[in-house]
Amino acid sequence: MDDAERGSVLVALGGNAILKHTEQGTAEEQRHNIGVTATWLVEMIKHGFRIAITHGNGPQVGDILLKNEIAKGTLPPMPIDVCGAESQGLIGYFLQQTMHNELVRQGLNLPVATVLSQCIVGEDDPALKDPSKPIGPFYTVMEASKLREERGWTMIDDSGRGWRRVVPSPKPVSIVEGQVIKRLYDEGFIVIACGGGDRLKGIEAVIDKDHTASALARLIGADTLLILTDVEGVYAHFGKKEQSLIGELTADKARDIIVNGSLPSGSMRPKVEAAVQFVEGGGKRAIITCLECALLGLEGKRGTTIIK
Amino acid sequence: MDDAERGSVLVALGGNAILKHTEQGTAEEQRHNIGVTATWLVEMIKHGFRIAITHGNGPQVGDILLKNEIAKGTLPPMPIDVCGAESQGLIGYFLQQTMHNELVRQGLNLPVATVLSQCIVGEDDPALKDPSKPIGPFYTVMEASKLREERGWTMIDDSGRGWRRVVPSPKPVSIVEGQVIKRLYDEGFIVIACGGGDRLKGIEAVIDKDHTASALARLIGADTLLILTDVEGVYAHFGKKEQSLIGELTADKARDIIVNGSLPSGSMRPKVEAAVQFVEGGGKRAIITCLECALLGLEGKRGTTIIK
Repeated sequence: MDDAERGSVLVALGGNAILKHTEQGTAEEQRHNIGVTATWLVEMIKHGFRIAITHGNGPQVGDILLKNEIAKGTLPPMPIDVCGAESQGLIGYFLQQTMHNELVRQGLNLPVATVLSQCIVGEDDPALKDPSKPIGPFYTVMEASKLREERGWTMIDDSGRGWRRVVPSPKPVSIVEGQVIKRLYDEGFIVIACGGGDRLKGIEAVIDKDHTASALARLIGADTLLILTDVEGVYAHFGKKEQSLIGELTADKARDIIVNGSLPSGSMRPKVEAAVQFVEGGGKRAIITCLECALLGLEGKRGTTIIK
Repeated sequence: MDDAERGSVLVALGGNAILKHTEQGTAEEQRHNIGVTATWLVEMIKHGFRIAITHGNGPQVGDILLKNEIAKGTLPPMPIDVCGAESQGLIGYFLQQTMHNELVRQGLNLPVATVLSQCIVGEDDPALKDPSKPIGPFYTVMEASKLREERGWTMIDDSGRGWRRVVPSPKPVSIVEGQVIKRLYDEGFIVIACGGGDRLKGIEAVIDKDHTASALARLIGADTLLILTDVEGVYAHFGKKEQSLIGELTADKARDIIVNGSLPSGSMRPKVEAAVQFVEGGGKRAIITCLECALLGLEGKRGTTIIK
């Protein structure tokens, strides 16, 4: 376990690492998925990488919001930022419990800690004026219209599946708990932090999780930002016949494909942006790949590596 | 702020410090109550005490369980331990946000961190075989009978207000995240931990919060365990005409009044037991009092002080 030799990695877990879209969201499903994830993460540690972990919370905060909505006749619903904090508790608990148990099973004596985190966003972040991130339950067009009027929510028709509330998804400027996260990481803890990114002032927004991962990676001085997602990496012409995996991308080239639009504006785009931000901010490399390819990705043999 | 001069204090916040029984449980109410609490806590810090914080989570975990129950036709309900972790996220978020803001307002530059915590309980703890702690929603006698049959829950008639599920309330043997909590406390962080006490194996139980506070106080080497509750302190003949506040109690005398039954078995009893455990385990003193009396309590002028 030579830290200097293999380097330090901030692992940004995608939603699938915890809960798959096709699943119901039971505790058992989440525990199972995280169990598989933990096995891979411990494998990285055994290969000599020092890791810290962050994660998305979309499906979990969505479920918590929906439970609040369904129960609102009986109990007052919590706002998004509070539901986000609850989801950090929920996911952090599953992750730290599972990581601890897997480490013990493999005879590794490494402490794990979840630090409840809040991000500060810029008041002038243009995303604050442009709600675009769908969250929570689906509504009918009538309900949507009523919610728009009664609560001032921005509602959109989400890919024809129903109407949903959209909230701003600003980028983090800093992490309030940065000092404690860095301290614990430096002292050898496997730190779990910034899962879904809350915020200091209680704004009803969801902070961009890929940019949070990039900020966290720079904060702890990781040389690798490892962004895990559902696909092997960044593809040229994704979804078309001539689709091909891009093995390595310079920041300039990555910026090109963002600007010229050959990268779809979906979920891959913020990942590539966050990767560029990381390497331009002094990080050695960012890797975008799937959980199963992560170890080979760290060897440069799978996935997409973004360098300066 | 001379640590050596005034000493270190583990503050165990009572439920009222966060949410009062008479309140609905809105985010605004909780934010307001915690704001008041934070003002008192920062006052302690300004008086030179070094503090760490733990808290109960009864009302919050109850609300989360009830929301899960109401929404169960749509979304799978989470088990108690997961709801407990969610409540740690919720309360920790409110507390650290409010403490941070109050410290900044008062010009104090002290870092605050919430560490998600799990306790280990003894497999032979007799409490595990004797479910006694009511949690979650009230049910009718018919519903209670159905739940007893379908889920194997133990149900009791809770003071005539309705039927409720009771779960075991074991004492913690150790705190999994003890190392990180102590490290951060030693390094000057205001640590928030063990709020409601989860557990490593996912047992459906609620760990005794006063004994968790006692364990946490010993862990960080606090000389004072400050247990905050709704009343000024421990009373002899509580609720009777001759009721009188007990200013100071030795551990022996405290054990006496527990055994001879002059202390009602309600919520004061585990507090006195935890106080005795703390001072017999090497702690200097335990104080049981209310939030408003806490500062004078630390001077020995209000509340009940338990010494060895």
